[in-house]
Amino acid sequence: MDDTRWLTPDELRAWTRFVAVVELLPGILDSQLQRDAELSHFEYFVLAMLSESPQRTLRMTGLASATNATLPRLSHVVSRLEKRGFVERTACAEDRRATNATLTDAGWRKVVETAPGHVETVRENVLEPLTEEDVADLDRVMGRVLAKLDPEHRFNAAVTRTD
Amino acid sequence: MDDTRWLTPDELRAWTRFVAVVELLPGILDSQLQRDAELSHFEYFVLAMLSESPQRTLRMTGLASATNATLPRLSHVVSRLEKRGFVERTACAEDRRATNATLTDAGWRKVVETAPGHVETVRENVLEPLTEEDVADLDRVMGRVLAKLDPEHRFNAAVTRTD
Repeated sequence: MDDTRWLTPDELRAWTRFVAVVELLPGILDSQLQRDAELSHFEYFVLAMLSESPQRTLRMTGLASATNATLPRLSHVVSRLEKRGFVERTACAEDRRATNATLTDAGWRKVVETAPGHVETVRENVLEPLTEEDVADLDRVMGRVLAKLDPEHRFNAAVTRTD
Repeated sequence: MDDTRWLTPDELRAWTRFVAVVELLPGILDSQLQRDAELSHFEYFVLAMLSESPQRTLRMTGLASATNATLPRLSHVVSRLEKRGFVERTACAEDRRATNATLTDAGWRKVVETAPGHVETVRENVLEPLTEEDVADLDRVMGRVLAKLDPEHRFNAAVTRTD
């Protein structure tokens, strides 16, 4: 007895295209950032999230939520960014068990230098082929998928910004 | 002078959600397949594409197109699958410079065993929260992004199936 709920032709086509984009996009984001700034997309994302935070500082747990990462993965990457002088970790003043990550001045300059090329890559590869309606549809569909992938809203993107 | 075309709030929100899904989804697909079949999602994808091909065989170049992969990445993964007895490589009869990859009987059984759990994961995490209209919108939007990411239609997904 096969009770698998196989995909319909429409679902299969949408899934095939979606999974191809999910395979291809990270390589495109990473190549531009590696070439122009010697950063992976995830490293850039960590620096960018800190640059938008008050005092350019977040607790490591908050930074993990902002970057859709587990704490072990984030810690590993923050160590590398610390060695390059872009981030500093200090004990949190209000809670000694917690650790803060702060963007250094060198880290801030790195974000300011790197952001335009990254935004241009996102615009060129993802947003340019889309109409305004496509962008709204992308937002709605990804919001629904994200609510499923992250039901406890562990990551900020699920409840992001202008919501 | 800053002529960067920064994202609008609507674009930023759609992009933030989209990139979160792009970060989270591969881990979900990989974990289920690793746990249940000791395969990465990409390894499963390679076996599945062969299983749908005539004589369960594709040229390595065709298999690369079917799986959105470069030939070096694919060759590496096919070597691993060959060692596990799921795939065999042979010289192509029509063109001795080309190499064919064929799914073995063990590889076929592996796909048959593994497909239901994988499809269930895709359905539960991606398709279930979506309406029929959402699926159509996802298909259209991903088709447009893919046409940009893969302008020469090197990968099959760009012109996939029912097109």
